[in-house]
Amino acid sequence: MSDLTSPLQRIPKYMPIRDALAHQIESGQRQSNEKLPSERVLSETLATTRVAVREALLMLEMEGLIYRLDRRGWFVRSPRIIYSPQSTKSFNQYVTEQGALPSTEVLSMQRLPATEWDAQHLDVDLGQDIYSIWRKRCINGRPVVVEHLRIKTQIFPDLFTHDLSQSMTELMAKNYQRYLTRAHIHLYPAALAEQQARALHVNVGSMGLYISRTNRDQFGVITDVNQEYWLHDILDLHFEAQ
Amino acid sequence: MSDLTSPLQRIPKYMPIRDALAHQIESGQRQSNEKLPSERVLSETLATTRVAVREALLMLEMEGLIYRLDRRGWFVRSPRIIYSPQSTKSFNQYVTEQGALPSTEVLSMQRLPATEWDAQHLDVDLGQDIYSIWRKRCINGRPVVVEHLRIKTQIFPDLFTHDLSQSMTELMAKNYQRYLTRAHIHLYPAALAEQQARALHVNVGSMGLYISRTNRDQFGVITDVNQEYWLHDILDLHFEAQ
Repeated sequence: MSDLTSPLQRIPKYMPIRDALAHQIESGQRQSNEKLPSERVLSETLATTRVAVREALLMLEMEGLIYRLDRRGWFVRSPRIIYSPQSTKSFNQYVTEQGALPSTEVLSMQRLPATEWDAQHLDVDLGQDIYSIWRKRCINGRPVVVEHLRIKTQIFPDLFTHDLSQSMTELMAKNYQRYLTRAHIHLYPAALAEQQARALHVNVGSMGLYISRTNRDQFGVITDVNQEYWLHDILDLHFEAQ
Repeated sequence: MSDLTSPLQRIPKYMPIRDALAHQIESGQRQSNEKLPSERVLSETLATTRVAVREALLMLEMEGLIYRLDRRGWFVRSPRIIYSPQSTKSFNQYVTEQGALPSTEVLSMQRLPATEWDAQHLDVDLGQDIYSIWRKRCINGRPVVVEHLRIKTQIFPDLFTHDLSQSMTELMAKNYQRYLTRAHIHLYPAALAEQQARALHVNVGSMGLYISRTNRDQFGVITDVNQEYWLHDILDLHFEAQ
């Protein structure tokens, strides 16, 4: 408890500065790609030291709210794409609604015998055929996620005759009357392995965000399991807990 | 669509190997900190090439399932702590239930005038006092998260007379009859700034996981806003979508 006798020691002096700038950005007073005032001007406006301003700017950079251009100063970052995994909106829907342009490229599609991992996660027999599809998705032309879909064959006959670059949820609903009703999702930050990193044009080992979804239809049957490998700075995940 | 004419080109040969090993680890056939067989033995057992085994091991390392010790080989990682943000379990509860030892250290506690950011997020008037508390939480003695709690003063008088290292949710329920009923959560991977990195004993700029929670009580009133800065490899977040 020795910390508590001199609490000021540990309270970062830059927090009010960080808060002031974060508020200006979040409330829309400062626009995406707008240049911030110089550190000197900020320290005068906010009545604080250059050191505190600098620390606040570094904090905001790390939180992903601003970025720096050499010799040109600090700028407001475009906001992340808000993704609510609880909603049933497709990638195309939520990206479009936020004013950006989604696109999808199918990298490969195959029928493969289920591995033990597939059997366990998809609830199929070992060795039974499954669909294995790799896709790459872009926002405004920039690749942001590589995904691996493993889909049951028996309830989706002739899947490969359809356009696989569309929303898979919509395809399953429209053509097979299987409606996504429930999903189990888990996620954590993870470094990108070679294949994913190459497709996303970043270095192997760059930090990414791993999201895995097990989807069930209106009968409670598992339809597919998706593993998504995102760049780390694209999404802001939102959800509500009751 | 040229990819689809030669799909094998893009299907990583190591995926079945990755799946086989991932299944052995997830199903408990291989224990935490167990050494994996050598790459030579694995390639014989799994009837594949040394190159495919090596690529599968690198993939599993990046997914956080295994780790490498120089000249000693590959080992199974201890599983991440499963955290379900939708549940109302406290840190102490879910860590204990998973067989690990939680602890909490209060770094600082202060009453501070609300910044614009506070006013916006906590729904208080600008300049009105709020509690500002920094804590560090450990699992098995290792610091894993630094958190900044901003709490309303008016509904929690004399908060600092209580033990602030306990679960804040429990403290609010037991002593103030304010029950956590609803939370808005958002999260994304973010680099750790200096203060957080130092408290967690990692380099500044190391990747972390940022989780922010706005908590409401049974009246729908915002009680507190928490910002948590986690090491990136501690949590596995699980949730259900309907």
